[in-house]
Amino acid sequence: MTPSEDFAVTDRGGIVENRHRVHAAVVDAKGRLLYALGNPARLTLARSAAKPAQALAILEAEGVARFGFDDADIALMCASHSSEERHIARTRTMLSKIKAEEGDLRCGGHPSLSDTVNRSWIKQDFVPTAVCSNCSGKHVGMLAGARAIGAGMDGYHLPDHPMQGRVRRTVAELCDLDVQDVEWGIDGCNLPTPAFPLDRLAQIYAKLATAADGDEGPATRGAALARIFQAMARHPEMIAGEGRYCTVLMRAFNGTVIGKLGADASYAIGVRTSDETRRLGTDGALGVSIKVEDGNIEILYAVVTEILERLEIGSPEIRSPLAPFHHPQRINTMGVTTGGVSFPFKLRGSKADGDDPRLAALAR
Amino acid sequence: MTPSEDFAVTDRGGIVENRHRVHAAVVDAKGRLLYALGNPARLTLARSAAKPAQALAILEAEGVARFGFDDADIALMCASHSSEERHIARTRTMLSKIKAEEGDLRCGGHPSLSDTVNRSWIKQDFVPTAVCSNCSGKHVGMLAGARAIGAGMDGYHLPDHPMQGRVRRTVAELCDLDVQDVEWGIDGCNLPTPAFPLDRLAQIYAKLATAADGDEGPATRGAALARIFQAMARHPEMIAGEGRYCTVLMRAFNGTVIGKLGADASYAIGVRTSDETRRLGTDGALGVSIKVEDGNIEILYAVVTEILERLEIGSPEIRSPLAPFHHPQRINTMGVTTGGVSFPFKLRGSKADGDDPRLAALAR
Repeated sequence: MTPSEDFAVTDRGGIVENRHRVHAAVVDAKGRLLYALGNPARLTLARSAAKPAQALAILEAEGVARFGFDDADIALMCASHSSEERHIARTRTMLSKIKAEEGDLRCGGHPSLSDTVNRSWIKQDFVPTAVCSNCSGKHVGMLAGARAIGAGMDGYHLPDHPMQGRVRRTVAELCDLDVQDVEWGIDGCNLPTPAFPLDRLAQIYAKLATAADGDEGPATRGAALARIFQAMARHPEMIAGEGRYCTVLMRAFNGTVIGKLGADASYAIGVRTSDETRRLGTDGALGVSIKVEDGNIEILYAVVTEILERLEIGSPEIRSPLAPFHHPQRINTMGVTTGGVSFPFKLRGSKADGDDPRLAALAR
Repeated sequence: MTPSEDFAVTDRGGIVENRHRVHAAVVDAKGRLLYALGNPARLTLARSAAKPAQALAILEAEGVARFGFDDADIALMCASHSSEERHIARTRTMLSKIKAEEGDLRCGGHPSLSDTVNRSWIKQDFVPTAVCSNCSGKHVGMLAGARAIGAGMDGYHLPDHPMQGRVRRTVAELCDLDVQDVEWGIDGCNLPTPAFPLDRLAQIYAKLATAADGDEGPATRGAALARIFQAMARHPEMIAGEGRYCTVLMRAFNGTVIGKLGADASYAIGVRTSDETRRLGTDGALGVSIKVEDGNIEILYAVVTEILERLEIGSPEIRSPLAPFHHPQRINTMGVTTGGVSFPFKLRGSKADGDDPRLAALAR
């Protein structure tokens, strides 16, 4: 179980081409580590995988209740969407609900995360603007939160704005960390983005799933977390877009699992309590977090799917729509298969004990 | 000097985001290792960085002399071009020189390696075909070699075709390896592609540069290697395309250096003899080879440029056109700088002796 095994590997004709170091943590809502891969405490910029935690700060600021946002709006706050028409239209509707305009947004346009959308933009000479940002929902949510707390929309994206202070406290609380123990950078969309040990990202998602189970947490926060989980699970088309991993995953699991990508290859999953989670060694819900050390998102999706299979979360039938992500085709320009992706890593049980039956079950 | 330092690192606000393991070898034409980074003997699929070696087999089969190919044609045989009009037009002219047609090619079309070209293709609903392959020149060269040795064009791309047998022997000889010690996969363009220890890739390029110096090698092979070096150095626009690294590099060095990308982030450089190479510990020319373990090409270009700077190959003025590749901008959708790329690695001198003055000079 040396670190040299903690890799996903691509080959060409059986010859190793690339190796990608992988880290993962599987925890319960109390943050207890059940399984690990690589360094489960790796300080990790969660990027967009932190959006549900940022959305919680918006809900707790009354930003959702005051302006009448619905569950699909909340889903868009948690999204890294593909800038499809439905995402842009909803962004505009959300702006109108808070009587704001596109010019109030402090994110910028960028090429769509969807090749299909990009091709249509190029053909039309379309120049994407702020409402097209994959993070547009989060930005409208932050504007709503800023207005709801009476702090004004100006500078809502800056670290010294009261709304961002609330976000910092909320994120730290969800991670069971002191506020000064979470580090912050600036995201691609121009909002602050947190960094914390990777297992804390899993814990946030375990708390979301626990709340969806109706199990625990302060009444108010529990209800808000449950609403975020349900909004994501019921509106997977808002979270990413047609054909993208998060959308396919949540459609496949039909309400029992949420999953969210972060840029530079972080991922987080929340799994509601079931026989499957109990078999993995907890009485409650589970969170899973994954980071590919080099930021490769194609490899990330393959690894996330492999880990779901190792943990036996969902039946093979439920997971079958994820197959194209699990074993991405390595075919050349003449349709010849040139190689594949393999997963020599082993998930470690939290006990360093080689006799741990969970360890034996998960090592291949 | 632990392996944990053999990385290029990206950060966001000073927080480590991604780490990319890097391998490199600096050798002379005899294969003597002068400097190393990571594992200089890493078994590496050279991909398109092997094209000059494949071109040598074409020249030695009389494929160039018989059909009257010129230096720009030879450069295109060594290219991973951007499918610009000039590349496609030259491919068609080369096909006509051997009285072959596009239908004889066994490569396929694919999106251009240039965003600019791709955008124009999308706007025109253009579907790229074989002549647009970034490897089109190599394929026409293989057809020419196949015809020149009287083996026929049919199946020229298959391992059991006599032309590919010649390629295997030529590549092994350039690496100073037995033919069975080079492994082969199938490339994206459908031709066989070799794998050998990374330092052997550097040695091939040291031999190319040595030949360009007119210094050594069997008369015939030396002349062919020199012609390949000169073809690449004099026609950098054929090797890649407008704005791409190989083209910018070779234009900047104006005949003293050749450089070539391989897919999945391999790179090779040949440096003609100069005071700079002598200072690095050899009387002759140098070869440099680099592989990013995870295949990230943006990071590769940054690392290649950093290593050229560490080795002081070329003056700062000569290297200045490479600056955008050396420190790729990390700015977000609102133009805010969010982080950067750093190079904590150290090049090791070939002696494991910490007192080696070369080591001291290169460690930062």
